[in-house]
Amino acid sequence: MLEPELLATNQAIIARMDSPVALIPQLAAHLVAAGGKRLRPLLTLAAAKLCGYEGARQIKLAACVEFIHTATLLHDDVVDESVLRRGFASANAVFGNKASVLVGDFLFARAFELMVEDGSLEVLRILCSASATIAEGEVLQLTTQNDLSTTEQKYFDVIRGKTAALFAAACEVGGVIAQRPAAQTAALAQFGMDLGMAFQLVDDALDYAADEAELGKTVGDDFREGKLTYPVLLAIAGADARELEFWTRTIGEGEQSETDLATALAFMQRHNATQRSIARADAFVESACAALAAFPESPMRTALEDVARYTTARRF
Amino acid sequence: MLEPELLATNQAIIARMDSPVALIPQLAAHLVAAGGKRLRPLLTLAAAKLCGYEGARQIKLAACVEFIHTATLLHDDVVDESVLRRGFASANAVFGNKASVLVGDFLFARAFELMVEDGSLEVLRILCSASATIAEGEVLQLTTQNDLSTTEQKYFDVIRGKTAALFAAACEVGGVIAQRPAAQTAALAQFGMDLGMAFQLVDDALDYAADEAELGKTVGDDFREGKLTYPVLLAIAGADARELEFWTRTIGEGEQSETDLATALAFMQRHNATQRSIARADAFVESACAALAAFPESPMRTALEDVARYTTARRF
Repeated sequence: MLEPELLATNQAIIARMDSPVALIPQLAAHLVAAGGKRLRPLLTLAAAKLCGYEGARQIKLAACVEFIHTATLLHDDVVDESVLRRGFASANAVFGNKASVLVGDFLFARAFELMVEDGSLEVLRILCSASATIAEGEVLQLTTQNDLSTTEQKYFDVIRGKTAALFAAACEVGGVIAQRPAAQTAALAQFGMDLGMAFQLVDDALDYAADEAELGKTVGDDFREGKLTYPVLLAIAGADARELEFWTRTIGEGEQSETDLATALAFMQRHNATQRSIARADAFVESACAALAAFPESPMRTALEDVARYTTARRF
Repeated sequence: MLEPELLATNQAIIARMDSPVALIPQLAAHLVAAGGKRLRPLLTLAAAKLCGYEGARQIKLAACVEFIHTATLLHDDVVDESVLRRGFASANAVFGNKASVLVGDFLFARAFELMVEDGSLEVLRILCSASATIAEGEVLQLTTQNDLSTTEQKYFDVIRGKTAALFAAACEVGGVIAQRPAAQTAALAQFGMDLGMAFQLVDDALDYAADEAELGKTVGDDFREGKLTYPVLLAIAGADARELEFWTRTIGEGEQSETDLATALAFMQRHNATQRSIARADAFVESACAALAAFPESPMRTALEDVARYTTARRF
């Protein structure tokens, strides 16, 4: 339904990540050109189309959203000294921390250049604010790491910042360039925000989805990093004395042995942590779909609802 | 001469680096609030005053320039795994790589938010483009690390990107908000660019200024990191067989023992590498001052010339 726009966005992405400094397109290509799901730029394209927008500005802005996302991925790859000392493999083994940081910075800057070319201060305001919020969410996550007293509220603050804010902005700008009334751009932002919350909840649940381990998906990254994600919070909330001791040692103190992940998964299952996380995500999806009621029924509205519902159905 | 403006800039800096996520102002305060030389924001303030600007926009933009600078400092602190493995102390020992990256990202985003509030697309264009150029320069520097075949041209490309581009942008925006003709904003950009080149040349020379070691300044950081800075290029260009073997091992292959820095310093002195670097910086300073001829004589023009000449006179 959005194939020509997505193709144009891909072309813009490849054209605009170029640089005379060869390492930049080389490293960026690993993430950007390889072509992930392109979920966030698709949201911008879909929101613009839902609003009946007929110009071409959504292409550049979709590329810009993907650049911001890729930059955060690169920066997320940066490994702490402590993690390295514990002997875990680094996600950025090929190029190193420094290259990840600097190429990420380049993509951020390029994203802002794309916005400036677009020329709308309103769009700039939305995406700059989202960028600051993403960083705040990531720092908040860092401060909750290994902290067993992390509340559900704080977890939701983290994922609202690190994930949902960009989903919201990606949707909102599609409505802004179509010059829709505030009620509709706000509805798009709400749709994106709820969708982003659902998306991250599912992501965090799948990190403990033991039955997927056989399919080649990495399981347990969050566990190893001592992240207080929703399934862990659920398991801790329902923990008996023995379980609490386990979580205190493995997550609180970061002392893990090879068999601990299997134990963690067993405790998770005992409390239905994965299913309950996905149920929570389902509630966000319903809220997301409800926000779209600000728009008349249309094939694009149905497509967006389908995308949202698919988010909690995915198992990869 | 610019004291009230600098005071207001400092207040803006402290106010705008605040965040509900406590680690952000905590970490940023280490760098920003502690108050470095504030050289780059001072350039914006001085350029605006030189142009007879009488509004208040320069304050926010000066803060914005300092945020960009601080973000790059934080990201420069990020350490590579390889460096860690070789056992060097990390510059970001207190907070870790990840916090440096994320708080840097926050400051970048905040800088862009400040620009959006200012509302000038021309200013946004200049500073976004400078940000992309900084990242390109830093990546280029990374690719020349440990590469003995690095040319002088490439070194100048690196410092133009990583340092001079922000100096240039800081000056240029001062002229832009004063709505000066293109010839004068271009002259300001040229002044900043040349000044930045001189500044980095002096910085790189001082990293090998042995006689300063007693004054408590760290010497030899660039050597340990295998950076191909100007003094090293001079020493390599004039090296005999024994010296070349030394540079190949210590810089090219990164194999260093404790006594190597002293040897490096001795070779540097043999080729007058520090003095010749500063002479090169002097030439940039003269070019910077010449650019200011686009403006009539004034106390502020003299002050800027003095700042430029002081750059190559500094010994810390």
